[in-house]
Amino acid sequence: MSTTTFAAVSAVKQRAERAFDVDLSPSWTIGGRPNGGYLLAAIGRAAGVAGPHPDVLAASAHYLRSPEPGPAEVEIEPLRAGRGASQVRGRLLKDGVVCVEALLTLGTLPDEGSVRWDGGLPDPRLTDPAGGVRIPSGASDGFTAAIFGEIDARLDPDSARAFTQGPRGLGELRGWLALPGDEPFDPVSLLFAVDSFPPATFDIAPSGWVPTLELTAYLRARPAPGPVRVLHRAHLIADDRVDESCFIWDRTGRLVAQSTQLAGIRMR
Amino acid sequence: MSTTTFAAVSAVKQRAERAFDVDLSPSWTIGGRPNGGYLLAAIGRAAGVAGPHPDVLAASAHYLRSPEPGPAEVEIEPLRAGRGASQVRGRLLKDGVVCVEALLTLGTLPDEGSVRWDGGLPDPRLTDPAGGVRIPSGASDGFTAAIFGEIDARLDPDSARAFTQGPRGLGELRGWLALPGDEPFDPVSLLFAVDSFPPATFDIAPSGWVPTLELTAYLRARPAPGPVRVLHRAHLIADDRVDESCFIWDRTGRLVAQSTQLAGIRMR
Repeated sequence: MSTTTFAAVSAVKQRAERAFDVDLSPSWTIGGRPNGGYLLAAIGRAAGVAGPHPDVLAASAHYLRSPEPGPAEVEIEPLRAGRGASQVRGRLLKDGVVCVEALLTLGTLPDEGSVRWDGGLPDPRLTDPAGGVRIPSGASDGFTAAIFGEIDARLDPDSARAFTQGPRGLGELRGWLALPGDEPFDPVSLLFAVDSFPPATFDIAPSGWVPTLELTAYLRARPAPGPVRVLHRAHLIADDRVDESCFIWDRTGRLVAQSTQLAGIRMR
Repeated sequence: MSTTTFAAVSAVKQRAERAFDVDLSPSWTIGGRPNGGYLLAAIGRAAGVAGPHPDVLAASAHYLRSPEPGPAEVEIEPLRAGRGASQVRGRLLKDGVVCVEALLTLGTLPDEGSVRWDGGLPDPRLTDPAGGVRIPSGASDGFTAAIFGEIDARLDPDSARAFTQGPRGLGELRGWLALPGDEPFDPVSLLFAVDSFPPATFDIAPSGWVPTLELTAYLRARPAPGPVRVLHRAHLIADDRVDESCFIWDRTGRLVAQSTQLAGIRMR
């Protein structure tokens, strides 16, 4: 059972106008290193405080180094303050060394969003999370993804077969995500949600670590309380790199976040 | 007929270790403002010179202001130099004011790339560009997109109906792109290609300017000589913002670049 909330492990404490402290939890890790979406969410929290607008609309992160858990810093540098949108630089440092460098466009997400057209979205296949198979925090070969002991990430039964019966070759994982204690998602926590699932490449071929090189997320609406629906897809594996997209719907079926990432594929 | 090459209009001249001059062409504009992918390509050119690796693998740009054509500057700031990949910040300034702020991950694209799996890509529907309908540089209401007098952008006949007979509601434009004088594409010119087509929203409903807020591009392989195939798609229009993705295949059918962007939708 988890003893931490996402609000607590992603909390930033303002130390100066543009500098924040964050304590990276050893529990929100894969193989001992903090999850990349978790790191981006910490930057997003600081940007919402230091920037001229409250909500992240678009965030692009390039991953330079994987920090150890423990105390770290977030720096925010305003670039432009407009009426409807503003832009900031954000970075996460460990012991003064930059680990994640990001750019964020901020604005205000409406309380009641208006969807004008959603014909280009994949089918969320909204079903009941109760039927899902929870992703465990330990794997058979001793690799530990402690984060799955914190979050409740469930694969739908068909996606789960990628792990129990071997890759299906679809390059697609579907399921649900809930934060510890059913803490409601806020927009910033969706920056974590888009990077919370195992690599979709595991449904194509087993591999070692799939480290994110770049992650871009768009936040489209405030999520309703309750678990979110996750669709994580791989598109092209070439030259030991893969691009993956992720779509997040809230409990009401509204698309609340989407992302794309480029990752390396390491052999075990 | 065009009198400039893309190599010429996107050329950067090194003025100092990290500072470059670029002359933004008044011909590579939409409504008088330089195309966003063109601006990112200028940053990519400078990054390939100033950075420790030659090729852009991933580029994320946030658009702060739309510069006038004419002399501008590009600044590159190294962030990390690794063995296989490195990261830099890049920005484009006009009269000392930042217009585009970007992050780039650099590496080396192999001469002969190896595709291991491409099951998540859309069908390129590779056909002959000769049957395409060239996008004109002028529109019936007096709006001028001078850039289409430079590049040879052709819609396939079905996509062209979105303009001649009204939006089809698919949110998708397919076609081909050739640079002036059939100049071969290099990886950096693909940063322009992913933003070269009209907004895919024009196949859903007519609107005014669709200004890019964020553009992320991944370069996956060196393109073969010849025109490239373009698939530009909208996914969700909500709260006057749209996300679009773009896929670029070279003449041999190899996926060479892909992108996602978040854009605003302005009414006329």
